Amino acid sequence: MSTILSGKEVAAALTDALVQRTQALKDRGISPTLAIVRVGEREDDLSYERGATKRCEKIGVAVRSFVLPANASQEELLQVIDQVNRDPEIHGCLLFRPLPKHMDDETVRRALAPEKDVDGITDGSLAGVFAGVKRGFPPCTAQACMEILAHYGYDLTGKRVTVVGRSLVVGKPVAMMLLQKNATVTLCHTRTVDMPAVCREAEILVVAAGKAGVVDASYVSPGQVVVDVGINVNAEGKLCGDVAFDAVEPVVDAITPVPGGVGSVTTCVLVGHVVEAAERTCGMA
Amino acid sequence: MSTILSGKEVAAALTDALVQRTQALKDRGISPTLAIVRVGEREDDLSYERGATKRCEKIGVAVRSFVLPANASQEELLQVIDQVNRDPEIHGCLLFRPLPKHMDDETVRRALAPEKDVDGITDGSLAGVFAGVKRGFPPCTAQACMEILAHYGYDLTGKRVTVVGRSLVVGKPVAMMLLQKNATVTLCHTRTVDMPAVCREAEILVVAAGKAGVVDASYVSPGQVVVDVGINVNAEGKLCGDVAFDAVEPVVDAITPVPGGVGSVTTCVLVGHVVEAAERTCGMA
Repeated sequence: MSTILSGKEVAAALTDALVQRTQALKDRGISPTLAIVRVGEREDDLSYERGATKRCEKIGVAVRSFVLPANASQEELLQVIDQVNRDPEIHGCLLFRPLPKHMDDETVRRALAPEKDVDGITDGSLAGVFAGVKRGFPPCTAQACMEILAHYGYDLTGKRVTVVGRSLVVGKPVAMMLLQKNATVTLCHTRTVDMPAVCREAEILVVAAGKAGVVDASYVSPGQVVVDVGINVNAEGKLCGDVAFDAVEPVVDAITPVPGGVGSVTTCVLVGHVVEAAERTCGMA
Repeated sequence: MSTILSGKEVAAALTDALVQRTQALKDRGISPTLAIVRVGEREDDLSYERGATKRCEKIGVAVRSFVLPANASQEELLQVIDQVNRDPEIHGCLLFRPLPKHMDDETVRRALAPEKDVDGITDGSLAGVFAGVKRGFPPCTAQACMEILAHYGYDLTGKRVTVVGRSLVVGKPVAMMLLQKNATVTLCHTRTVDMPAVCREAEILVVAAGKAGVVDASYVSPGQVVVDVGINVNAEGKLCGDVAFDAVEPVVDAITPVPGGVGSVTTCVLVGHVVEAAERTCGMA
């Protein structure tokens, strides 16, 4: 029987702490505020927006929505971002991507002020997570993995950690954050030879492969801690991770479930970034 | 007997190719130009400047030096950088660091236009190497390692590579560049447990530990390729690497010497970035 690393439990603990930090800001006359900028009505975006808004309400962070039609021009979007950048009462900005095809992702990302980039999409944020310094914010999902490991008390110093996946939103940033915590980090991916062996030699395994159930029992070994970043829908229409939970859980020491794992922590991290951005404006962080 | 991976040979080949690309630019009326910005007269800086200037001359790239006294104000330095940014006839800028203590490194780095950042010090360059896209330029020493591996025909896809050292100028960027070439990359550092074992399991070992001779025979295994990034001066006043060459060379398949290895390629990479920056201005790269 392995320990189930509950994202919901982590989210609850983070929420409690954020409620207090938000109150401390309000006591100083600052109301932490998230701007949500969305172009169009993609179902994925709407679903994430609902979750983020609910979490903001719970914590006491204000939300201001800026919604543009799917056929809005890039110029219109850039004007909204400029407005967000200039407004001292907005501390963070969540900009949904991918953008419509007629917009240039890089131009739009560049327009956002790095200090309000709570979702980690600007060059400033990427450079910050790469350098291991507080500049902008790391991508929320990557940090959610770190929050789970921290909540459950894992000391990463000297630990061998294998990260499966090299995306810019999870694999690479989580590798840098693990390195910052003094882990010995191995990054593997679709071109890795004998990935099961590379995974088995780790003490901690972070899986962000983006493919349902790809990590089976052959990838794990006793004593391991497994963090499953994947969110997929299986043939029966049920949510599942990148790890074949039923096969892996009996082997390892601890594992995050899907749902109820990493995904449950992500919006908390986002709101935490808004609170930290607000704290930075008044020298509290 | 292992193969000696000669940095001088790589530098000669890169130089030949750069001479041709520079001529092609000149045929179009563009004279690739490097600005060297130096504050004070540190011996390390002067030595590197001599090497870079010599390499520029060999390739046909022009050099313009901007030298400020060690007690220059930050404002004066920012004015020089602004001048470099604005001058369309300057394509790249080498800014020597560390800066004097009375200057703020981040403020100064931020001032440099990323497209002229041929030494990979701006957030744009760091984000580019982290994301694996052409934005700014990677740090020259990290790329020098890649040039050596490329010149000697090593296909990195699926190879296990261990990088020793996690600095922002070598360890982290070379790890990202190796990943971009589809290697399975392990980053280790001073807090790694049993580093010799982590190194022995690699097929390619890149050593940027910053400590003379720290990688001895216990770190290597037969068949390995070893790239030694270190440049140290030993007790006898001789240049030596981070790898104990005499002990390691008989074990491994191939190794870069010090001197005559990675260090010999670095200025070529720098000048190559100037040429590429010039090419980018006219859509040739």
